[in-house]
Amino acid sequence: MVYIGIDVGGTGIQVGIVDQNGVILQKGGIVTRTDVPFATQVKAMADCALDTLAKSGYTLDDVASVGAGIPGVVDPRTGRIAFCPNLGWKDVPFAQEMRRHIDKPVYMDNDATVAGLAESVAGVSAGTHSSVFLTLGTGVGGGIVLGGKVWSGFHGVGSEIGHMIIEMDGEHCNCGNNGCLERYCSATAIILAARKAVAENPDTLIMTKAEGDPMKINAKVVFDAAKEGDALAVKLFGDYVKALSTTIVNIIHFLDPEVIALGGGVSKAGDFLLDAVRAEVARLVMYKTLPFARIEIARLGPDAGIIGAAMLGL
Amino acid sequence: MVYIGIDVGGTGIQVGIVDQNGVILQKGGIVTRTDVPFATQVKAMADCALDTLAKSGYTLDDVASVGAGIPGVVDPRTGRIAFCPNLGWKDVPFAQEMRRHIDKPVYMDNDATVAGLAESVAGVSAGTHSSVFLTLGTGVGGGIVLGGKVWSGFHGVGSEIGHMIIEMDGEHCNCGNNGCLERYCSATAIILAARKAVAENPDTLIMTKAEGDPMKINAKVVFDAAKEGDALAVKLFGDYVKALSTTIVNIIHFLDPEVIALGGGVSKAGDFLLDAVRAEVARLVMYKTLPFARIEIARLGPDAGIIGAAMLGL
Repeated sequence: MVYIGIDVGGTGIQVGIVDQNGVILQKGGIVTRTDVPFATQVKAMADCALDTLAKSGYTLDDVASVGAGIPGVVDPRTGRIAFCPNLGWKDVPFAQEMRRHIDKPVYMDNDATVAGLAESVAGVSAGTHSSVFLTLGTGVGGGIVLGGKVWSGFHGVGSEIGHMIIEMDGEHCNCGNNGCLERYCSATAIILAARKAVAENPDTLIMTKAEGDPMKINAKVVFDAAKEGDALAVKLFGDYVKALSTTIVNIIHFLDPEVIALGGGVSKAGDFLLDAVRAEVARLVMYKTLPFARIEIARLGPDAGIIGAAMLGL
Repeated sequence: MVYIGIDVGGTGIQVGIVDQNGVILQKGGIVTRTDVPFATQVKAMADCALDTLAKSGYTLDDVASVGAGIPGVVDPRTGRIAFCPNLGWKDVPFAQEMRRHIDKPVYMDNDATVAGLAESVAGVSAGTHSSVFLTLGTGVGGGIVLGGKVWSGFHGVGSEIGHMIIEMDGEHCNCGNNGCLERYCSATAIILAARKAVAENPDTLIMTKAEGDPMKINAKVVFDAAKEGDALAVKLFGDYVKALSTTIVNIIHFLDPEVIALGGGVSKAGDFLLDAVRAEVARLVMYKTLPFARIEIARLGPDAGIIGAAMLGL
């Protein structure tokens, strides 16, 4: 059997035909359109999936299920999507609509959650007892996999890890609260902190690397400057490591998973980030002599969305 | 069948013979002695358990298992206790030693965890999909129950909820870190904050209720003064509600359990605390229109330790 995985993004929709080991056999994709009604959007996804299936050499008889990773809040039990701002959806019957075109079981979950599932099937946390996946991108998303199964909570509002508060009365977050870890651990947080810092202190390698334009600062620019020992960049990197390590220690002290995997754009910093975070987490954990979660960089990259969506049906 | 439950405390050890519904059929207890060797401590517990069993009218043939709630870090898989400061234990083979006296399967877990399990079998979270239990006492302990089973994590160091950080660089905690929620949400935190506040502002109902002695301040004194509208007490109560609500919202945004149950001394404030916390949590949750965890006061009181320990064998 094969599994159709659909990674629903704000700019593009990626589709894959995936085998039971999480290997993508065929890929396809369309541009996300928000200027057409919901039913048209879903039909376009289904058409792309059927087209990709045909190219893969498999037929509908081989398909076990359709899975979708949604950048929003889903209720896997009802098949409805409560919110999906990028697609303009609010309380839409996604599973029901998809089944009008592909009459197979339809599964769905949050995009960060399915990426975490992908890593637990075919990536860095494969075969583990439990894992928590963090996407460090524009925001911070989270995916929890326990005993091989996605954990989305009782009401489907769990694993919104980016909005756990690590600083009461801290930085204001778009969600309305203050001190959400997303405001410290996302790529956006690094960029905003760096822009503010260079305004006060423009004599930094960060500005050189950003060609003198604060709008060209990104996480890579800051981390690269830190690697070269630029004082301001080292300070910004240290603040980032501290916040991310606090987040990781909170996950350890709460759920104690076997693996905590870091994905998203910031995780491309690789060992430079990983070494610093591992050292800081070891300093912060309560029981210094007891083993705790392995911290790893996620392996699957952008394909995690397709693979995880497909694996919802496993 | 019946289940032996042992609640190992720093001052007393409570033993109960418990049926499969979490009903205590017979209770016993001894004073905790720390001046004798480990083997002698365990033998005293076993003797008390056998004595209590005899009084219950049941025999060893009726006993399914022995369970223990330990105020420390246990490894349920190896049967060893890594740390238990109150008893003076460090890496002791508890299960093995207990079986020398009572040859039945021996289970154990953290004391807050077993109290959470008790609530999920016979208390406020009975029959639920998932629950998180918080003990608001001298410290803050936590217990996680998912699908009827205790979740202690992969390495057995999970559900140390009291040491999740809600304020980076915040109040110093005994664990060595800063900003652990225990420093804001425990009874101790209320007492310390109140003592500090009355030193600067002694003209408060808190001092009247404490008979003019800051050492007589406890959580009840502060909350009672807040109920009567004392400005300083209202401020302290507000700070407490904010920190506890932040903690609860973090649990919701991470695990999204069906129920969050509040136990321990501070929870005796009942509806006065519960109403304020429910209102603040509703204000702080990210998806205001979606359902989230019910917040409830735990029901079983001090017996939760015995019941939960026994139910580890269920």
